Amino acid sequence: MITKLRFWKFLLLMLGLAFYAGTNAMAQEEVTETVAEVVAEIPADKLDEGLAYESYDAFMATPAADFFTISNLWLLIAAGLVFIMHLGFSTVETGLTQSKNTVNILFKNVFIVCMGVIVYALWGFNSMYPGDFNGFFAMGSPIANGFDSAGTVGNMTDSYAAYTYWTDFIFQAMFAATAATIVSGAVAERIKLAGFMVYATILVCFVYPITGSWEWGGGWLDAHGFADFAGSSLVHAFGGYSALAAVILLGARKGKYVDGKIKPILGHSMPLATIGVFMLFFGWFGFNGGSVLSADPQGVSFVFVTTTLAGCAGGLGGMFTSWILLKKPDLSMGLNGILAGLVGITAGADVVSPWGSVVVGILAGIIVVIAVLFFDKIKIDDPVGAISVHGICGNWGTLCVALFGGAAAADAGVTLTWQFIGTAAVSIFAFICSFIIFGIVKAVMGVRVSEEEEFGGLDVGEHGQEAYPDFAVASKG
Amino acid sequence: MITKLRFWKFLLLMLGLAFYAGTNAMAQEEVTETVAEVVAEIPADKLDEGLAYESYDAFMATPAADFFTISNLWLLIAAGLVFIMHLGFSTVETGLTQSKNTVNILFKNVFIVCMGVIVYALWGFNSMYPGDFNGFFAMGSPIANGFDSAGTVGNMTDSYAAYTYWTDFIFQAMFAATAATIVSGAVAERIKLAGFMVYATILVCFVYPITGSWEWGGGWLDAHGFADFAGSSLVHAFGGYSALAAVILLGARKGKYVDGKIKPILGHSMPLATIGVFMLFFGWFGFNGGSVLSADPQGVSFVFVTTTLAGCAGGLGGMFTSWILLKKPDLSMGLNGILAGLVGITAGADVVSPWGSVVVGILAGIIVVIAVLFFDKIKIDDPVGAISVHGICGNWGTLCVALFGGAAAADAGVTLTWQFIGTAAVSIFAFICSFIIFGIVKAVMGVRVSEEEEFGGLDVGEHGQEAYPDFAVASKG
Amino acid sequence: MITKLRFWKFLLLMLGLAFYAGTNAMAQEEVTETVAEVVAEIPADKLDEGLAYESYDAFMATPAADFFTISNLWLLIAAGLVFIMHLGFSTVETGLTQSKNTVNILFKNVFIVCMGVIVYALWGFNSMYPGDFNGFFAMGSPIANGFDSAGTVGNMTDSYAAYTYWTDFIFQAMFAATAATIVSGAVAERIKLAGFMVYATILVCFVYPITGSWEWGGGWLDAHGFADFAGSSLVHAFGGYSALAAVILLGARKGKYVDGKIKPILGHSMPLATIGVFMLFFGWFGFNGGSVLSADPQGVSFVFVTTTLAGCAGGLGGMFTSWILLKKPDLSMGLNGILAGLVGITAGADVVSPWGSVVVGILAGIIVVIAVLFFDKIKIDDPVGAISVHGICGNWGTLCVALFGGAAAADAGVTLTWQFIGTAAVSIFAFICSFIIFGIVKAVMGVRVSEEEEFGGLDVGEHGQEAYPDFAVASKG
Repeated sequence: MITKLRFWKFLLLMLGLAFYAGTNAMAQEEVTETVAEVVAEIPADKLDEGLAYESYDAFMATPAADFFTISNLWLLIAAGLVFIMHLGFSTVETGLTQSKNTVNILFKNVFIVCMGVIVYALWGFNSMYPGDFNGFFAMGSPIANGFDSAGTVGNMTDSYAAYTYWTDFIFQAMFAATAATIVSGAVAERIKLAGFMVYATILVCFVYPITGSWEWGGGWLDAHGFADFAGSSLVHAFGGYSALAAVILLGARKGKYVDGKIKPILGHSMPLATIGVFMLFFGWFGFNGGSVLSADPQGVSFVFVTTTLAGCAGGLGGMFTSWILLKKPDLSMGLNGILAGLVGITAGADVVSPWGSVVVGILAGIIVVIAVLFFDKIKIDDPVGAISVHGICGNWGTLCVALFGGAAAADAGVTLTWQFIGTAAVSIFAFICSFIIFGIVKAVMGVRVSEEEEFGGLDVGEHGQEAYPDFAVASKG
Repeated sequence: MITKLRFWKFLLLMLGLAFYAGTNAMAQEEVTETVAEVVAEIPADKLDEGLAYESYDAFMATPAADFFTISNLWLLIAAGLVFIMHLGFSTVETGLTQSKNTVNILFKNVFIVCMGVIVYALWGFNSMYPGDFNGFFAMGSPIANGFDSAGTVGNMTDSYAAYTYWTDFIFQAMFAATAATIVSGAVAERIKLAGFMVYATILVCFVYPITGSWEWGGGWLDAHGFADFAGSSLVHAFGGYSALAAVILLGARKGKYVDGKIKPILGHSMPLATIGVFMLFFGWFGFNGGSVLSADPQGVSFVFVTTTLAGCAGGLGGMFTSWILLKKPDLSMGLNGILAGLVGITAGADVVSPWGSVVVGILAGIIVVIAVLFFDKIKIDDPVGAISVHGICGNWGTLCVALFGGAAAADAGVTLTWQFIGTAAVSIFAFICSFIIFGIVKAVMGVRVSEEEEFGGLDVGEHGQEAYPDFAVASKG
Repeated sequence: MITKLRFWKFLLLMLGLAFYAGTNAMAQEEVTETVAEVVAEIPADKLDEGLAYESYDAFMATPAADFFTISNLWLLIAAGLVFIMHLGFSTVETGLTQSKNTVNILFKNVFIVCMGVIVYALWGFNSMYPGDFNGFFAMGSPIANGFDSAGTVGNMTDSYAAYTYWTDFIFQAMFAATAATIVSGAVAERIKLAGFMVYATILVCFVYPITGSWEWGGGWLDAHGFADFAGSSLVHAFGGYSALAAVILLGARKGKYVDGKIKPILGHSMPLATIGVFMLFFGWFGFNGGSVLSADPQGVSFVFVTTTLAGCAGGLGGMFTSWILLKKPDLSMGLNGILAGLVGITAGADVVSPWGSVVVGILAGIIVVIAVLFFDKIKIDDPVGAISVHGICGNWGTLCVALFGGAAAADAGVTLTWQFIGTAAVSIFAFICSFIIFGIVKAVMGVRVSEEEEFGGLDVGEHGQEAYPDFAVASKG
């Protein structure tokens, strides 16, 4: 009873905040830090006029407006592509778990996209630019509410050279929701719904923007030459290590590790898992391609090439590694290999050479198979391999910027030392915060469903609903 | 026998018309009405030259060509995104119904996209600009057939400032097909295939363009300041109220309402339903984003933000409302909540503020749950909730332009009175036309399958084909 | 044992080559041939400056840069759309076959995308421009490895007017992978995994670029006015006739043709098949739309219209033809009709008029149904109809350029004779090469699984993994 009450109170609080924000929101964005970075990636002559315009209409009358319009459009399309990654996550996680927990996993994924975007608008976006607390993190505030002083729709500041304020928000909001979704797969099949909802909401609202600010907000990691192009560390390792902490506190699924033996719990639909990976790959064109932050032809096309080559190489790496180690060509390892390759190239997609990307991808595909087997051995029960794919390969990808980034990375001041410090800092911070939040939720609300519910499935237990009521269940054993 | 004969005659007639059109089509488009609207949304200096060019090549040599090229490309991509909404509709409807009717539902959806686009080319597109009958509606005619007087591929008129004639057609054709698809879900699991095909073809070909012309064709509603940005009324309420008339004439599924009790008939695949909603959300970026009718950076980015926030807020609204009312967090209500939020913001995505969008979305999510329960109570059997999502929330969204559109809406002459008149007019007209057409089809061909066929499933009955022949069916009860 | 050894040796060789390439790759692209074609499709004044620039930065400072940026972005987005066609192929093939072979089919599809892109980077791309051997074919070499002499990211040559070198590569790489995937469906449910992997890799690496070079590389077919806009012959007929050779050598599935009777083997999931066709249609906007090779508004919008109309007309053609011939409206024939219409318009999407496209599509939809029935009659066992859809309709579409291309095609020097010679040459060459490669693989490694494995399913046999372990299998008969 008390648990439920607290949960509802939390939700009321959130909704109340949203309503307050809706009527009262003031634009308090602190975004000037990133201008230099944006500018650096755009042909100089395209920008000069953009930075000096006095109103939106005045700017749109300059020759710089066309490049601005193209770039802005590309970032919006990229945001759409990142959005569809949530379909990918939903189906990968569902496919790799049991049919009796399908509704629950889908619900969690749908919830976290919805809540993630709302709380990012409410707090996260405006807290991603540090300053309030000695450059370490900042207070958040709701995004602006529409009409600027000039009375036009939208809100333009002269600090944006290649996209509008709204484009910046929506693109980043999709990333934020991604980070929280990564956790969802690792804790699947035994976590209490309400507990997960509270935990994931806090994580994406308050913690994700802090580590994000260290680099993309122009914080301390950025100041030391740390490079994480599209988020191998800031999104993927963040999600992976948050998941690790949650899994440790949550414990393994019943029947997974019995008498020192590892009992495989099979995923119920390989087509769903495959659809998911293809969708994630598709979305990654926006995730990495959009992170160029303009439509610069060289930049975006280069990123498409490195991203694709690494993903494909990762798939081959995963397939052949599983074939050698497990004696059979394993589809799910091939799929995880693709994701591993994509996560691996995410930090350096703009600087690693094409053939370097192939090497990064193959090695990521090998690493992920070994990592999955390793975590199973030490009884960290991660049903979908999220910790290995996003956590370990997120670390790997971040290091690869220094290892394979060549002259381009070196010129930008990238060093292996700071790549290591950066990815370690993000991972450890995510782990600790996740551990604390998940620990508190565990103590207050509980995070684990009962043994009967776990056995009977969370779909019926949590939702009173079956995912496939028309199909007969196979008798096992 | 007579029924079948009539059906084939109808089809032969349609194909004959298509062939006639193929050899004889003349460009008779009447499109100048909308120019003012298009122009109003594009920075003036970008347009000046576009309106005065003498040939395509001459225009493409002007500085205005780049903005034109970007905008044109965006509308084409948006058309592709609206197309993929049909995958969304197909899987949502399939997932929320029984496995024995899956082939039938997929067939209907695939058919209506194909036929919808063809008849829109044949008649609908050129009838969307009223004038022939006192400004109320117009005669249609086939779209132009390719080569204009200048001998270049395509057909440009100087009335198009931000996209070509072909782009205009394909973008609007995707919308037209959408309207008819909405009906398909509401009448699922007991409608006769041939009857549905004839009904839906007539609806999309002749009726949809009439209500469309009232606003987007510059008709009487447009003249009174009625605002429906991307079609809360013109597409969604149109589809929803057409569905309502059809469902009333068709009757409920056998066994749904027995002895005064409502017996739930469960959907057979929640992953399919979820895939569908994600795809619809993804497509909505094109549905709303493309309705800016140019790549104007402020306009498109603002619409992306309001659309996303309303969809996410709608999901939360649906989830929590179902949790409170039904005691369990219901996935399908969360999914319908997302759709409700998206439908709700569609009319005002260009003027409602971001936090206003959140409020519009949450309320739409609440409304849709209540509406679904209400229609079930009055024995309107709508297996997928299409009437609630598209009809009721289409009305709601149209009113929201006046309620939440603020200064931007007021400046454009939007009033609550005319928003109400407009959405009521579209809904009632759709209902009446649908009632008449469906009634005639019912009288002539029959619309309802036999009780045995309904019990055994339409897949075997109508198609002689099972959707999942490899899987054993669960015994019920 | 020997078989396995040879397989691993082959793979080691490929990976070794990849690594060698990664460290040693030199840019040896021979691409100037196509410039004339590219230029021809772009407004002249947009190009003049582009062809004369001295460095990337110098070019980006010219007014031509904006059109270049838009076009480049469109080709990248189109590449992403072609990528998602692989999700389409995977789910169509899976849906139309039995559940016991699902993992195997998914594995093959995922593998071939990954390997296809890598070997295209390693050899194929730079062999698509003939010259080394009397204009018939060329030696390949790895793509360039990143940094050009100017030290910027990417590699620009002044021969590219509307997209970068990297964009050219990634767009074409997606096409290459498509060709090999077509075979995968036709040989499904009885082919040995390792044999298929070696065969498909060789096909996409060495054979596909040869026929591609004849037209797109400016080879002998191009010189005679042969037109194949986006690859009805070069991609689809190539894949279809390669599949035909493989199927002949492989033989039919056990139990398919017994005592002179054709026993249907049903697909296990019609939703998967439908998802696949929608995804393929969606991807085709990039496949055909991107083949304009710029964002030219007339060109791209016209191609969207012809592509959509042909696909929709094909669906109607397939539906009604199956209804007449098979007495029931068959969903899979409708789906194959859509694909047939799309394949049919692919060669002439830029010149066939809109109503001509409808005719091309309807006829393709009729042809595909007849072709499927014909191949079944002569005991060519093609589980998904790939030979009919891609092979036969690929031929049909190529002829349609001359038949329905009108003045635009005639002006470009297109003749029915050379359309026939071209599509025949590509088809026969693909058939012969496929026959030889598949024959060698059959002799050395074996291509057919054992009868027990075929009966028990390739998922367990080849992968030790079930696609749907939670669901009970229906007992048959």
